[in-house]
Amino acid sequence: MDQNPPRSTSVTVADVARRAGVSKATAARVLGGYGTVSDRVREAVTAAARALDYRPNELARSMTTGRSGTIGVVVGDIENPFFSLAVRGITDVARQAGFTVILINSGEDVTAEKAAIRTLLAKRVDGLIVSPAKESELDHLQEVARSGRPLALLDRGSEALAVDTVIADDRNAAEAVTRRLLALGHRRIAYITACDTSDHLFRTPTDINTGSVRRRIEGFLDICREAGLAEMERWVHVGASSPEHTRRIATDMLRASGRPTAIIASDSVIGLEVFKASCAIGLAIPSDLSLVSFHDADWTSVTSPPVTVVRQPVYRLGERAAQLLVERLNGEGMEARRVVLQTEIVERASVAEAPA
Amino acid sequence: MDQNPPRSTSVTVADVARRAGVSKATAARVLGGYGTVSDRVREAVTAAARALDYRPNELARSMTTGRSGTIGVVVGDIENPFFSLAVRGITDVARQAGFTVILINSGEDVTAEKAAIRTLLAKRVDGLIVSPAKESELDHLQEVARSGRPLALLDRGSEALAVDTVIADDRNAAEAVTRRLLALGHRRIAYITACDTSDHLFRTPTDINTGSVRRRIEGFLDICREAGLAEMERWVHVGASSPEHTRRIATDMLRASGRPTAIIASDSVIGLEVFKASCAIGLAIPSDLSLVSFHDADWTSVTSPPVTVVRQPVYRLGERAAQLLVERLNGEGMEARRVVLQTEIVERASVAEAPA
Repeated sequence: MDQNPPRSTSVTVADVARRAGVSKATAARVLGGYGTVSDRVREAVTAAARALDYRPNELARSMTTGRSGTIGVVVGDIENPFFSLAVRGITDVARQAGFTVILINSGEDVTAEKAAIRTLLAKRVDGLIVSPAKESELDHLQEVARSGRPLALLDRGSEALAVDTVIADDRNAAEAVTRRLLALGHRRIAYITACDTSDHLFRTPTDINTGSVRRRIEGFLDICREAGLAEMERWVHVGASSPEHTRRIATDMLRASGRPTAIIASDSVIGLEVFKASCAIGLAIPSDLSLVSFHDADWTSVTSPPVTVVRQPVYRLGERAAQLLVERLNGEGMEARRVVLQTEIVERASVAEAPA
Repeated sequence: MDQNPPRSTSVTVADVARRAGVSKATAARVLGGYGTVSDRVREAVTAAARALDYRPNELARSMTTGRSGTIGVVVGDIENPFFSLAVRGITDVARQAGFTVILINSGEDVTAEKAAIRTLLAKRVDGLIVSPAKESELDHLQEVARSGRPLALLDRGSEALAVDTVIADDRNAAEAVTRRLLALGHRRIAYITACDTSDHLFRTPTDINTGSVRRRIEGFLDICREAGLAEMERWVHVGASSPEHTRRIATDMLRASGRPTAIIASDSVIGLEVFKASCAIGLAIPSDLSLVSFHDADWTSVTSPPVTVVRQPVYRLGERAAQLLVERLNGEGMEARRVVLQTEIVERASVAEAPA
């Protein structure tokens, strides 16, 4: 490597063409992967590019081929194992299809999400996969869709945005969990989510901007209503957006008289903090408190007791989103598709009959 | 938003200049943030850019200002909580300094790492933070360093590469852990790492390409040698690169006669699988098996027993790497700096005297 020209970024298509003894247009066709040339010419150009350590200028490449070979991904929180696993699903499919995945974390902040998308568009990614932070602010995504840049939504979608969308069957999962807890005699069932409202209070599901979570809460409330439980809205707690916030919410809740006998955690980061808070207060799971967490995170099977979870098809969510995007990048024109993947309840030992 | 031109990416500096009634060079000066113009002209150009929804072509911007406002980060495995936490440290500092972080996962594969760096350079990132997959293959990073693009190494460094480097005091941590286990009477102590060798066998630390892990193994072997334990190399197991691999390695090891009485897990993903394998086989922690894991992952405090860990300053590693990079991006010329952050052993309940 040390014998190579030190600043290979300055090697141009013209340099490669000269070394290969072909015209610049021919070299550009080979290096850009378009048009037709003979095998002999292709080999000569490829060998010259290798010898000179030619590195394509991405913008130039994208102007000739319309491709930069990259997919931009914007997720809410890469520290949440849900998203890191979904990103692996995306990356595995993308790599197979010859694309590099470029990731930006929005921190579930819609301003950061807009900036991330601007950056990725400016970097000329070929397509985007986004897990929108807020379903009420989709103008920037509408704009991407209108510009014709392929876009797929991950885990969260909106009927208002006609683009490829892959979500999990969150509503059904929440309904099944709620039915199970009701059957075991629970009536004081709390739902805790990281989503927040302007005044940190929950009144109605339409307050919740993240579709996956809104659908879960709708399912939870509907099943409670069917069972004759009114005003369960007051058992929905928002704003558990960090371990510290969750600990405070869970601790306050579990110390109150009339504390919940069951808690549904909207993700595994919340589930873990509820588990810790319950231990710290001295409440036994499941005899004092039943716990169900969304996401089958790695730790949920090694606690005592192990935690009952909603296993979402997380890897598959990423994989399907990337597949839809790659199909579209390959020019397969079609209507926007909406894929809903099934969830599964994994019964472990954190759920029991409500204490008398 | 609907009134905006639908394809704003096609708006050029010339369009903005025309609308503002100034020359293209003047418009470019304002939009690029360089040179001097009157406030009136600046306002006219800014207003025109806003009206046309002008979006700078990043390459053009980087040619005029030398900045694209982005930092490229390449990590080994974003699913490992170590890296996702370090990336948060990087992102927090970068955002503060006005940079967007673009992340690419190498999967600890040096070919993917090279491709990632090529992509990021082609996307004109202003600087790079890399956690190199292999210290024996650094030519591509040497080249980045030679090109003058600011580069910082995270968690792994090499004396051979004179760039800003932030690592943890891995050797000291491993020495302290080993001393502690020896003092409790352990002699059969296994070390399990995701790093691999060409034939999946460990002979000498120089086989290990990841500096942080190599330094830990050196510390482990040195302290064993000081205690009169010979040939502890055979207790070092490589290739625990996935939960499945780790489970097999741990299960085989724990089922063998002359099984280890203590295991040091080189990261928390491995620690979790060792914990699970031990439970599955029916070995009690810590009476049958002592376990120490690197990285204070979230699950380690909620198991029964909770797991003794080496707490690495993970967030701080990312934060410092980003600070060094931003300083360099701000043109503070200086020699390459090497920062070594302290680790800490968090004693929980997974370590006890060796069984008789």
